Amino acid sequence: MKRRSFLKNAALTGLGASTTSLWSLNSKNFFTQSLQVNSPRIEHRLFELAKFGRNDKGQGYRVAYTQGDIEGRAWLMELMKRAGLNPSIDTGGNIIGKRKGKNASHKPIAFGSHIDMVPDGGNYDGVFGSIAALEVIEILNENNLLTEHPLEVIIFANEEGGTVGSKAMVGTLTESDLNRVTQSGLTIREGLKVIGGNPDNLPACIRQKGDYTAFIELHIEQGGLLESENIQIGVVEGIVGMRDWGVTIEGFANHAGATPMNMRQDALLAASKLVVAVNYVINKTPGRHVGTVGKNAAFPGATNVIPGSVQMSLEIRDLSIDRIEQLFNEIQQEAAAISKVHKVKISFAQDFELFPAIANEKVKKVIEEVAKKMQLSRKFMQSGAYHDTAQMATIAPIGMIFVPSIGGISHSPKEFTQTIDMKNGANVLLQTILTIDKEF
Amino acid sequence: MKRRSFLKNAALTGLGASTTSLWSLNSKNFFTQSLQVNSPRIEHRLFELAKFGRNDKGQGYRVAYTQGDIEGRAWLMELMKRAGLNPSIDTGGNIIGKRKGKNASHKPIAFGSHIDMVPDGGNYDGVFGSIAALEVIEILNENNLLTEHPLEVIIFANEEGGTVGSKAMVGTLTESDLNRVTQSGLTIREGLKVIGGNPDNLPACIRQKGDYTAFIELHIEQGGLLESENIQIGVVEGIVGMRDWGVTIEGFANHAGATPMNMRQDALLAASKLVVAVNYVINKTPGRHVGTVGKNAAFPGATNVIPGSVQMSLEIRDLSIDRIEQLFNEIQQEAAAISKVHKVKISFAQDFELFPAIANEKVKKVIEEVAKKMQLSRKFMQSGAYHDTAQMATIAPIGMIFVPSIGGISHSPKEFTQTIDMKNGANVLLQTILTIDKEF
Repeated sequence: MKRRSFLKNAALTGLGASTTSLWSLNSKNFFTQSLQVNSPRIEHRLFELAKFGRNDKGQGYRVAYTQGDIEGRAWLMELMKRAGLNPSIDTGGNIIGKRKGKNASHKPIAFGSHIDMVPDGGNYDGVFGSIAALEVIEILNENNLLTEHPLEVIIFANEEGGTVGSKAMVGTLTESDLNRVTQSGLTIREGLKVIGGNPDNLPACIRQKGDYTAFIELHIEQGGLLESENIQIGVVEGIVGMRDWGVTIEGFANHAGATPMNMRQDALLAASKLVVAVNYVINKTPGRHVGTVGKNAAFPGATNVIPGSVQMSLEIRDLSIDRIEQLFNEIQQEAAAISKVHKVKISFAQDFELFPAIANEKVKKVIEEVAKKMQLSRKFMQSGAYHDTAQMATIAPIGMIFVPSIGGISHSPKEFTQTIDMKNGANVLLQTILTIDKEF
Repeated sequence: MKRRSFLKNAALTGLGASTTSLWSLNSKNFFTQSLQVNSPRIEHRLFELAKFGRNDKGQGYRVAYTQGDIEGRAWLMELMKRAGLNPSIDTGGNIIGKRKGKNASHKPIAFGSHIDMVPDGGNYDGVFGSIAALEVIEILNENNLLTEHPLEVIIFANEEGGTVGSKAMVGTLTESDLNRVTQSGLTIREGLKVIGGNPDNLPACIRQKGDYTAFIELHIEQGGLLESENIQIGVVEGIVGMRDWGVTIEGFANHAGATPMNMRQDALLAASKLVVAVNYVINKTPGRHVGTVGKNAAFPGATNVIPGSVQMSLEIRDLSIDRIEQLFNEIQQEAAAISKVHKVKISFAQDFELFPAIANEKVKKVIEEVAKKMQLSRKFMQSGAYHDTAQMATIAPIGMIFVPSIGGISHSPKEFTQTIDMKNGANVLLQTILTIDKEF
C-alpha cells in the first residue's frame, strides 16, 4: 500500500504526508479529513440541470439524444470547463474532464455517472453522482489540492438506453446496438452524432484493462432498502445482470361485437395472462431477482376491435446469469401453454444482455472504512439497478456508493434524496477518491 | 297492404301492376322479379373505394375525417351524382342522395350504410352496403323504373367512431360527443367541419319519427355464424346494445431493477389481471353477450420502468342493457379486489352507451320472404356488431340483411365476402326495397 502526499502545497497544511490513522483527530491529515463538499452548491446545480428539456407537465425531459439531453450536457460541460477540467466528448458520446496529478505515470482515478434519464424520470438518478463528481473537483480546486493520480470525471452518454457510452468505452458496443432505435426516436448511431460522438470511429474511445487505477460511481439507491433500514451509505458488493426481450403476441384482430367469445384469438388476453405468468414465475422462486414487463401496447388499439397483436417487453435481473436463464425458461413454458389455449403465437427476441459485475474488494473496503470514519451508518448491498460501473468493471477495479432514495422511488418524477444524504454521499466520494489516491 | 304499379313505363313490361304471387314464375311481375344487380360493378366499385387513403402497408385507410375518408366520400358522391341522386351533405356529415317517387306525399324508403373504417380495418364493412345501395339505384335507372315512394340513399358519417352521423340524424349527438377526440386526432366537432358537416347547426339534419317509410341496411355479418352454418342470408332480428368505458389503472412508476417484487405498485400487472377477469366474468355467464378490452397502453412504457399507469378500454355488448349492467358490476367487483392486492387505483369512465334495437316485424318478414322466393338459405339472427340502423330504429321501421363473412373476420384487412354472397345480398336488398315500395 503506497502512501504519498496528495497536497499540492505542503505549506497549506504544514503537515507531513503519511499517517497510519487517517481519520483520528490526532491525525496529521486533519486538513483533508475536514474537507467538506459544498452541499447547497450540489443541490443548486441539481435543480439547475432539472430545468432543461421541460415537458408540458413541467418535468425535466433529458432522454438521451433529445434537446434536453443536449442542452443539459452543454451546461455541464461549461461548468466542467470553469472547473479547469478541459472537458471533451469521446467518440462514444461520453463527456470526459481531466485533472492532472502529481505523477503523470499513474493511471487516472476515474469517477462520474450520467445525466440522461428515462421518459418520465426524476432529477437524481445519475445526475446526483455527476454533480457530486464535479463537486469533488471544485473542493480540490478551492483547496489547491493536487492528487498523486490524474483524475477523470466521466459523464457517460445514454446510460438509460443500455449503458451505451460505457459500452463504447469498454469496446462492446456492437453494430446492432448502433442500429437500435432509442426512446428519442433516433437510432444510437444517429443519436451519437447529435451529441458530438462519432459512431464511425468508436475504437478511438476504447479504454483498455489497466488504463484506470479505479472507477467509482456515487448514485442514489433507486430502491427502498437504505431508507427503510435507516442506513446512510450503501457499499455496493455487485451489480446485478439483466436480459431484456421484446415479446410479440400475434392473435387475430376481429370485430369486438360480432365475434363470439369462443371464436377469438385475442392477443391482449394472451399477453395479459403472460404478464401475470411472468409475475408468478418470478415470485415463486426464492431470491433477490426481479422480473418486469414495462412496455405493453395492443394493436390496432380500438375499443371495438379485438387486439390482433401486442408488443411487450420482458426484463429479468439477477446477480447470476444462470438464474436469469432458468427463470426465462420457465416463462417460455408458460408462454407455450398460453399460446395453445388462445391460438396465438408468442415470440421472444432478446434485445440485449448485461452481465453482472462484482465490486473490487479493496475499493469496497475503502468506501466502507471512509463511511465508518465519518460515523455514517452503512451496509453492504447489491445494486438491483444496472449502472455504467458494471461496464467499467470489465476494465477497471470498481466500486459504488449508494445513498437513500425516499420511498425507494426512482425512474419517476417523485424520485427524491434528502440534502443531508446527498451531502454524506458526496463527502464519502471525496474521501474515497483521496484515500484511493493515497492507498492504490 | 297497398299494391301499386312501380313501373315508370308500363310499356316496358306490358304487365299490370298487382299480383298476389310476386315471385311465382306465373306472376305478371316477372320483370321486377328478374331484375338482377350488376355483380361485377359492385365488386369493381368496392375495390376502387379501397384505394383511397392507402397506408404504408398498402391497406386502405379511411378512418373518419382522415384524407382517405374525405377522398372516398368525394368519389362516392360523384358516382351518386352520375346516378341522378343529387347528393348533398347534411349538417351531421351524412351523404344523402334522393330519387323521386311517383307519389311525392309518400315518405321515402331509405337505405344505405357507411364507408368509414376502423384503423387497420377491411374493405367490406359498411362499404358493401353503401355500394349495393347505389347499385339498387343504378338498376332502377337502367330499367327506367320509378318507385311509388321517394328513395333515399344514406351514407352515414363516422359510423366506426360511435354511429356519429346517424346519432346526429336522430337528434342524439351531444355536446360531449362533439368534444370527443376520434381516431383521426380530430374531435368530432372538428371532423364534421372537415367532411362538410356543420356542428353548429346540428338540428338542421334531424329527422323525426315518421319521416321514413322504412330504413334498410345491407351489411356483411362480421361474425362467423352464416359461413359456419353455410347460410346465404341473415335476417336480423335485433342489434345488440353496448357500453364502452375508458379504464385507468394508477400504480406507481419505479425502477425495474432496484424495486423488489414486494414493494411494487405495478399498474400493468393489475391491468393484466383485470383483462383476464373481464374474460372470466363474460365467459362464466351463459348467453350471447361479449366483452372486449381493445385498447391497452402502459406508461411510461420503458423496458426498465415498472409501469405507473395503464389506459385501457372496456366494451360489453348484449341485446339486454340489464345484462350489460350486471356484467359490469361483476367486473367492478373484480377490479376492486385487484386494486387492493396491487395497491393501485382502478377507475371506470363510461364513454358512451348504445341502446339495443329491434327489427320491425313487417320489414323482417319482407326480407325473409324475398330471400325465400329467391331460394336463398336464410336464418334469423342478432347483430353483435352495432350499426347506424340501430339509431335509425328510434325514428323508423328498420331491417337489416346480412351476408356471410369468410372466417367471421371483420375490422381487419383480412375481411372478405365472396362475390356470390355480395350478389345475393344486393339482390335481396333490391327486391326488399321494391317489395316495401309495394306493400308499405
